[in-house]
Amino acid sequence: MSDLVLHEYAASGNCYKVRLTAALLGLALERREYDIMAGETRTADFLANVNANGRIPVLQDGARFIPESNAACCYLADSTWLIPEDRFDRADMLRWLFWEQYNHEPNVATLRFWHGWIGEANWSELQRAQFPAKKAAGEAALALLDEHLATRDWLVGDSVTLADIALYAYTHVAEGGGFSLTDRPAVRAWLKRVEALPDYVPMDA
Amino acid sequence: MSDLVLHEYAASGNCYKVRLTAALLGLALERREYDIMAGETRTADFLANVNANGRIPVLQDGARFIPESNAACCYLADSTWLIPEDRFDRADMLRWLFWEQYNHEPNVATLRFWHGWIGEANWSELQRAQFPAKKAAGEAALALLDEHLATRDWLVGDSVTLADIALYAYTHVAEGGGFSLTDRPAVRAWLKRVEALPDYVPMDA
Repeated sequence: MSDLVLHEYAASGNCYKVRLTAALLGLALERREYDIMAGETRTADFLANVNANGRIPVLQDGARFIPESNAACCYLADSTWLIPEDRFDRADMLRWLFWEQYNHEPNVATLRFWHGWIGEANWSELQRAQFPAKKAAGEAALALLDEHLATRDWLVGDSVTLADIALYAYTHVAEGGGFSLTDRPAVRAWLKRVEALPDYVPMDA
Repeated sequence: MSDLVLHEYAASGNCYKVRLTAALLGLALERREYDIMAGETRTADFLANVNANGRIPVLQDGARFIPESNAACCYLADSTWLIPEDRFDRADMLRWLFWEQYNHEPNVATLRFWHGWIGEANWSELQRAQFPAKKAAGEAALALLDEHLATRDWLVGDSVTLADIALYAYTHVAEGGGFSLTDRPAVRAWLKRVEALPDYVPMDA
């Protein structure tokens, strides 16, 4: 890897995942901030040169670009202790990363954005119509996490992997989306284990 | 790997991905069909013993289970010609797999399901409200694919990878979701390249 640049919006959990992965691995990242609320990731320049999908984070390594937060984390962590050596465990880690993007992020992260950035008073009719299903799906995702963690310290195998980092990002700020962790004791204990990792960095660092 | 079982619903593109990957690699899969319309993946037995998330596909290898279609494909293809050896290309392949699950499947596959399994006359108010955004997002995903493939034969690098297999699954039946491929010539040429691969199997095989 050459000089690494993270194209990001700092308050995004998807961007924080990449920073936390880099910090745990001792990798330096240059950070470039985009104001997503002002459309800075939808400009012609961004679409042509950074990500045709108009989203952050994008990890840049020299002249090459990797969109999708979990793919960027996998790139940084390739062949390190954050990715299991065992074939099944490696696939199981990916299972959690895909689950995070399909079942957790579109609900827990989206409601955090709707509450904290848009404001309930400003929700569209469509957002109001979607809210009950997103709330229920987010609660189901957190319940599944809590049940899984009730009998183990980490999501996959016996030690921390990218699965924990990816799920930590939006779970630890789930209350901003209106999700209480009070009745999720296994999740709360696991959040503390992630926060105790050497070289851990908080989201606002 | 020991005896492989695919817990599936055959008409699901997510399940077909796993079958196509296995076929291209010459791996035998025992298939177990579940009627998702009858709730067979939400039974207490399925949730306890196959997938707590209540979804198919789930790949079983001996006593171990891998939910999430793209994770199952990665497990089967680990260290084979379907996954690039180059670190950047490997991450770029994952980028497309995550993009597929976040930007393509929830729109192209969901509208295929709504049209072909539920029927527009039976859509709920919420589905009617969500339709325009899902249609637009699905068109945007297909446009992005077409633009990317306009200058290359395969999504990543110079040869077929799991990224092509994963995106092929729902793209080749996109018309069932109301998406025309008439104006997507690069996509249509790429579909033909996938279909010309040795040991390719169609969805209904």
